Amino acid sequence: MDTELLSRKLTDPEFLLKKDWMIQNIEFKLKMIDLELSSKYKRTIMQKIDHRVKKPDSIARKLIKKGYKVTYENAAGKLNDIIGLRVVCLYSDDVYKIAELLKQQMDFHLIKEKDYIKYPKKSGYQSLHLIFDVPLIYKETEEFQRVEIQIRTVAMDFWAGVDNQICYKKSPEKMKKAETELKNYSNVISTMDRQMLELRKKVESM
Amino acid sequence: MDTELLSRKLTDPEFLLKKDWMIQNIEFKLKMIDLELSSKYKRTIMQKIDHRVKKPDSIARKLIKKGYKVTYENAAGKLNDIIGLRVVCLYSDDVYKIAELLKQQMDFHLIKEKDYIKYPKKSGYQSLHLIFDVPLIYKETEEFQRVEIQIRTVAMDFWAGVDNQICYKKSPEKMKKAETELKNYSNVISTMDRQMLELRKKVESM
Amino acid sequence: MDTELLSRKLTDPEFLLKKDWMIQNIEFKLKMIDLELSSKYKRTIMQKIDHRVKKPDSIARKLIKKGYKVTYENAAGKLNDIIGLRVVCLYSDDVYKIAELLKQQMDFHLIKEKDYIKYPKKSGYQSLHLIFDVPLIYKETEEFQRVEIQIRTVAMDFWAGVDNQICYKKSPEKMKKAETELKNYSNVISTMDRQMLELRKKVESM
Amino acid sequence: MDTELLSRKLTDPEFLLKKDWMIQNIEFKLKMIDLELSSKYKRTIMQKIDHRVKKPDSIARKLIKKGYKVTYENAAGKLNDIIGLRVVCLYSDDVYKIAELLKQQMDFHLIKEKDYIKYPKKSGYQSLHLIFDVPLIYKETEEFQRVEIQIRTVAMDFWAGVDNQICYKKSPEKMKKAETELKNYSNVISTMDRQMLELRKKVESM
Repeated sequence: MDTELLSRKLTDPEFLLKKDWMIQNIEFKLKMIDLELSSKYKRTIMQKIDHRVKKPDSIARKLIKKGYKVTYENAAGKLNDIIGLRVVCLYSDDVYKIAELLKQQMDFHLIKEKDYIKYPKKSGYQSLHLIFDVPLIYKETEEFQRVEIQIRTVAMDFWAGVDNQICYKKSPEKMKKAETELKNYSNVISTMDRQMLELRKKVESM
Repeated sequence: MDTELLSRKLTDPEFLLKKDWMIQNIEFKLKMIDLELSSKYKRTIMQKIDHRVKKPDSIARKLIKKGYKVTYENAAGKLNDIIGLRVVCLYSDDVYKIAELLKQQMDFHLIKEKDYIKYPKKSGYQSLHLIFDVPLIYKETEEFQRVEIQIRTVAMDFWAGVDNQICYKKSPEKMKKAETELKNYSNVISTMDRQMLELRKKVESM
Repeated sequence: MDTELLSRKLTDPEFLLKKDWMIQNIEFKLKMIDLELSSKYKRTIMQKIDHRVKKPDSIARKLIKKGYKVTYENAAGKLNDIIGLRVVCLYSDDVYKIAELLKQQMDFHLIKEKDYIKYPKKSGYQSLHLIFDVPLIYKETEEFQRVEIQIRTVAMDFWAGVDNQICYKKSPEKMKKAETELKNYSNVISTMDRQMLELRKKVESM
Repeated sequence: MDTELLSRKLTDPEFLLKKDWMIQNIEFKLKMIDLELSSKYKRTIMQKIDHRVKKPDSIARKLIKKGYKVTYENAAGKLNDIIGLRVVCLYSDDVYKIAELLKQQMDFHLIKEKDYIKYPKKSGYQSLHLIFDVPLIYKETEEFQRVEIQIRTVAMDFWAGVDNQICYKKSPEKMKKAETELKNYSNVISTMDRQMLELRKKVESM
């Protein structure tokens, strides 16, 4: 019932317009950053940019899990990731170059930074998460929308994809077993990232 | 030769990114305005929103005609209409409602307003032109792009279309004759606009 | 309940992909036709191309009104206008030129043609409706989607907009009164179309 | 001079419309294939789909290199890759599943298949290339456009990116050295692909 109200709010034309603009605006910054870094370093930086808007039922589930009532106000105020963007880049050092330039955007307000690359999650998950408040102006009002931008390498992105696949396992034991296997693979991912960086540096130094 | 330099500048990836964002940003405001007015008045407001970016050769021609050298700096600084948007609405009174809300956008700076509806051009051309400076932020820099927004009714838009067609006439005499004919038609256009408004008001008042 | 099933079907990823492709495909044909006619006649032909996909509840309402059960199969098989496109052009004679070229598309199968311009609806509504079966190929299967393409002039489109507005009148008497008023205006619309055509022909003949 | 003619042809409105439709049409098939495979195997299949249209000067360069005159007819008839799409997927076995489904499209005519995965280029480059003739219907005419679809894994795509970067090396000796280094890395890429597949299969078998 609450989910239905939330669902109506998330599909009303004003919310949709604002959300689209928000995504276009952040993608513009990311493409400018990609342009700046790739002309500076003369190589491909970003491999892809994706976005997603959380669906009403997964917002509701997350609110309930966190102990909040299912309302649009809680969704907008308590959750950081209703609007999310993901940047996948080739090399692990580029993750931080992109993050640096994002933080230099004077109209973006950094709220939180979670470095799951330096401190991977227990599951083995690696990624850099930046939470920003991004302004949207209409008439005399400036409102802020919270967005989460995830930056990761191709190898980290691959790992997260497999992790996500495991969630669909039928039995808890199987899930447990698969999780352990995946964790053991974390170092394979790190090795991939290290080897890719190594190759690039060799080629650059020639 | 100068045109070639200008042409290269107008197709460089950074200019294209900025231009696209600029158009998306202004279209966002226009769609928000459309939403606000159509929920307030419970009827269709805008019939269509178009945009165009002036081509290098027509920029060059205009610069030469105005006595400037053909450079990107002159194009950006002396011309108002490298980036142009056009809003076509159904009723003549809506033109001013849209303009009003555009001027209320606190991040848009009004540079000039040309009311060719109250004061039609000699040719008979009618339209409301607003010139704004619209900000674009990247890193610590805020730069301004000049854009022209034309607002007109369907009838005025039709008239302008015919006017434009006349420019392709082969001989100057024929062009002259066609222009006079079109001018005589100005009042037909005004009558259309008046009748459309009249019908709407009758229906509203019931 | 049935509407919910229908609604799920109309938002499943496969349906959405096919629908998007269908619209892009028909818009491609329309833009090619616009290009062919505007290079032939050296003037603007189409003023705008719109599309819409009928919402689940209005599909359900229409099915019930027609005495059918609310199922996807009935929606796809009995209704012609789940997917609709609308072409608005400047001159009444262009309506038929566009229709002619649409009918020449060898992969489009004409199902029905309703000429509400020659034979306006009782309400005064004018427009040309073409119903086509348009093929979509995936692997070894060719399936057909029924689509409705409405072609009308700017003046007819304006009239339809006012007609639509009247539906939101609160009392039946007011609605009746407004309808009569609008009907009286039909001839104003026809006069507009005639005058526009007249002006164009004068200009052309010079 | 010839390049200019070619360039005008490649930017004429009809060519642009057809090219856009062509890309949308092939992307539609690829997304349908992605949907089919990902619902069958319950995992992410495609990581990204890109497209590009060859620029006039690189078409001209390729024609000259192959000993042809620089004309649009030669560009369209002798080159396979004026329009190119690239699919990047996670696992090496998916490359062939995607190719299989592409070949089952009854309206796509396979012209050539180059398996640089089974038989890598001397440089070490790996990818599966499929050349198709794809039909486009306007009025009573069916014309065919040749397109190249490249399918590769993320690891192969990374390798190709580094290979491309090497082309910008200043001296031929440095280029030679970098190429040898990259070739030595081919097996690292193959190892990555094998490990990724291995992990997936372990997780699947649980």
